[in-house]
Amino acid sequence: MLEQLKKKVCEANLELVAHGLVIFTWGNVSGIDRERGLVVIKPSGVSYDNMKPEDMVVVDLATGKVVEGSLKPSSDTPTHLALYRAFPEIGGVVHTHSTFATAWAQTGNPIPNIGTTHADYFHEAIPCTRSMTEQEVKGDYELETGNVIIETFEGMNPMHTPGVLVNNHGPFTWGKTPHEAVHNAVVLEQVAKMAFVAFTLNPQLTMNPLLVEKHFNRKHGPNAYYGQ
Amino acid sequence: MLEQLKKKVCEANLELVAHGLVIFTWGNVSGIDRERGLVVIKPSGVSYDNMKPEDMVVVDLATGKVVEGSLKPSSDTPTHLALYRAFPEIGGVVHTHSTFATAWAQTGNPIPNIGTTHADYFHEAIPCTRSMTEQEVKGDYELETGNVIIETFEGMNPMHTPGVLVNNHGPFTWGKTPHEAVHNAVVLEQVAKMAFVAFTLNPQLTMNPLLVEKHFNRKHGPNAYYGQ
Amino acid sequence: MLEQLKKKVCEANLELVAHGLVIFTWGNVSGIDRERGLVVIKPSGVSYDNMKPEDMVVVDLATGKVVEGSLKPSSDTPTHLALYRAFPEIGGVVHTHSTFATAWAQTGNPIPNIGTTHADYFHEAIPCTRSMTEQEVKGDYELETGNVIIETFEGMNPMHTPGVLVNNHGPFTWGKTPHEAVHNAVVLEQVAKMAFVAFTLNPQLTMNPLLVEKHFNRKHGPNAYYGQ
Amino acid sequence: MLEQLKKKVCEANLELVAHGLVIFTWGNVSGIDRERGLVVIKPSGVSYDNMKPEDMVVVDLATGKVVEGSLKPSSDTPTHLALYRAFPEIGGVVHTHSTFATAWAQTGNPIPNIGTTHADYFHEAIPCTRSMTEQEVKGDYELETGNVIIETFEGMNPMHTPGVLVNNHGPFTWGKTPHEAVHNAVVLEQVAKMAFVAFTLNPQLTMNPLLVEKHFNRKHGPNAYYGQ
Repeated sequence: MLEQLKKKVCEANLELVAHGLVIFTWGNVSGIDRERGLVVIKPSGVSYDNMKPEDMVVVDLATGKVVEGSLKPSSDTPTHLALYRAFPEIGGVVHTHSTFATAWAQTGNPIPNIGTTHADYFHEAIPCTRSMTEQEVKGDYELETGNVIIETFEGMNPMHTPGVLVNNHGPFTWGKTPHEAVHNAVVLEQVAKMAFVAFTLNPQLTMNPLLVEKHFNRKHGPNAYYGQ
Repeated sequence: MLEQLKKKVCEANLELVAHGLVIFTWGNVSGIDRERGLVVIKPSGVSYDNMKPEDMVVVDLATGKVVEGSLKPSSDTPTHLALYRAFPEIGGVVHTHSTFATAWAQTGNPIPNIGTTHADYFHEAIPCTRSMTEQEVKGDYELETGNVIIETFEGMNPMHTPGVLVNNHGPFTWGKTPHEAVHNAVVLEQVAKMAFVAFTLNPQLTMNPLLVEKHFNRKHGPNAYYGQ
Repeated sequence: MLEQLKKKVCEANLELVAHGLVIFTWGNVSGIDRERGLVVIKPSGVSYDNMKPEDMVVVDLATGKVVEGSLKPSSDTPTHLALYRAFPEIGGVVHTHSTFATAWAQTGNPIPNIGTTHADYFHEAIPCTRSMTEQEVKGDYELETGNVIIETFEGMNPMHTPGVLVNNHGPFTWGKTPHEAVHNAVVLEQVAKMAFVAFTLNPQLTMNPLLVEKHFNRKHGPNAYYGQ
Repeated sequence: MLEQLKKKVCEANLELVAHGLVIFTWGNVSGIDRERGLVVIKPSGVSYDNMKPEDMVVVDLATGKVVEGSLKPSSDTPTHLALYRAFPEIGGVVHTHSTFATAWAQTGNPIPNIGTTHADYFHEAIPCTRSMTEQEVKGDYELETGNVIIETFEGMNPMHTPGVLVNNHGPFTWGKTPHEAVHNAVVLEQVAKMAFVAFTLNPQLTMNPLLVEKHFNRKHGPNAYYGQ
């Protein structure tokens, strides 16, 4: 079942490797079939070297139960599912420990929007979630990780800022498809690296909000004119 | 038409990828035929993977209108054209979001001339444009980006400092040919990286102006003796 | 003798190169056969380019004497042996001069546990050994290097924090096998790089101890649920 | 003439590229035949892509005149010759603009000896030359660059510290052969990178001088025991 989606999710996982965002098994991509309420995700702790579409695991969006697949799904599956349930427009989710985005997550600070590279893809600062409570960490931890992301996006449009830093942990990104979610993970890592360099050179930086509007809207606004 | 120039511009665009200056579609190179008043430029938002000379777009230097090509030209085309009109000696223009040059642009500061690597190619500090006004951002933004670069070079020789940082945005470079403009983009990125390292180690740095003269002139002065 | 172990140790040494942790001959991996009390280790100062399993040197765990092999063992052999004698659960040891871990060792500071990437593998901060005394440096230096590591781990579980920074020198890591010791060397380098970026952005960082427990235990605790 | 030496010098130049120390034509290697008083060096401003042994230029050690070769020698030839005349034990010289060593040169500071990686190859801090005077810069600049290096090494053993940073410019290294000089250039770049990371984390760093002696001497002292 879902052969096409499994193929796309498998390919998107391998794109993470090609873009240098993961080593070992430190990342996972999922994709959703909204009509059937099913999510396809990478198996847990499995090497990318020989990964095949049939290794992908199918889980139920509502319950998280495995519907198909002989391997256990990623331990981060409950986080992915929480995001799919809260953000109805997203079709793919990515989690990595990519170097610069993870380092920013370890600082506990958002990545301020200080350049057009950022504004071309993310309307706001890349937010960083609050520290999780004892109850959240000791409870259903991966689900609560999703919940704290959702809380962070209250009043924000997740399609206009398709990524987040989980405090002390690392980035999650999303998009309309698994491929687009990976694309946004690459952008976030690059934006995090540039912001590291810029803030190391000068800790006091801001950007004109008009420039943010301009760049975001020339790619994503109603009168977008970037691309074909 | 302009088959030779299209080939050169296409090759120069692919050089950006080979030198690691661009990911995805984040960069563009153009070249000019001064006699005919025509500029050849990369199409907007198109992947480098299968780019061919015939994908290049031909636009009119004076009006910016597409003269040939089935794809839309780069959204940065008005910036390129403004530079060609203001700097009659240049034959190629490059725009990238290369990591270290872009990070410097995000700081809003010029890159001071603190080393002979810099002075071998750029006579002055790499300038950074001023912030753009509301009118400029909301108006013909890409044309105004060119205008603010031109304003920055008032009293300077653009052939002696063949590059600039656009504030909060990223670098533009130029040269006698598209290939030379790419060469200068590589140099600028390398100079920006070295300056990041040097200023992080020691925020108070300068260079003897005599050494600047010596290095710039042994390569570019009337009695240049570098090379064959 | 020990053909299987020699093959594994040789492969683990080559993995160091593949993961970019060594240049020239700056690293070495060993493995142990606990039943026979024999350690297999890379020869000293030999290039990785044509390294073969039969080049590995077999030394006696108790005496350090060469039992088999025509080449001299790594000059760091006494350090490896001291670790095998003190930490009975380890089956492989790695030493490198990998860039970021070595730079942290040069600061003389431990790498604080500020992220889940760290906590997924190392329960504590990566400790840094104290400076060695004149007697230790002038005496049996490589053995004393092992002793100062062992002193650093008094009261700590070396299997829960499988690596250390030797002051002004560089990292040692270990694991149940030579392969696992290399895996931990890769993780330590990555953790050191992320911590460099994070502490450069913000020198005041900590992590919730609960989050450390959660991440360490979901991979290594009695109820671990990461992986297949 | 000197076919063997030309081959070695050509290969050593290509090693610079393989080790990532040069882009474009930003580096040069030479080697000397002490008996004949002849130096073989890379031609000036020539690409590495198709470089062949027969492109190397033979110059006279005493006069700097071209003895053989159809191309002009590197513009840095007078610096190389000055070093060969002052340091009779050296057989090869390298100049690069490698990123981290050049950035340190731009700071005007030596690289302190803060780690065993450094001490394994360089007994002292990597010195940085003083700023050159107006007379030196306007005079026979490349020869004076050699002279200021030689002045910097007064009272030092150039074989025990086989490299230097030329102020605001970049590194020169040397060794018994062209290949060894390249090896030392790679080490210097790596040492410079580690020192950048370490000093960024902690600006107050030193190393126990005993540890310097130990590491330098176990590789280079009368009782060296590193390697085969």
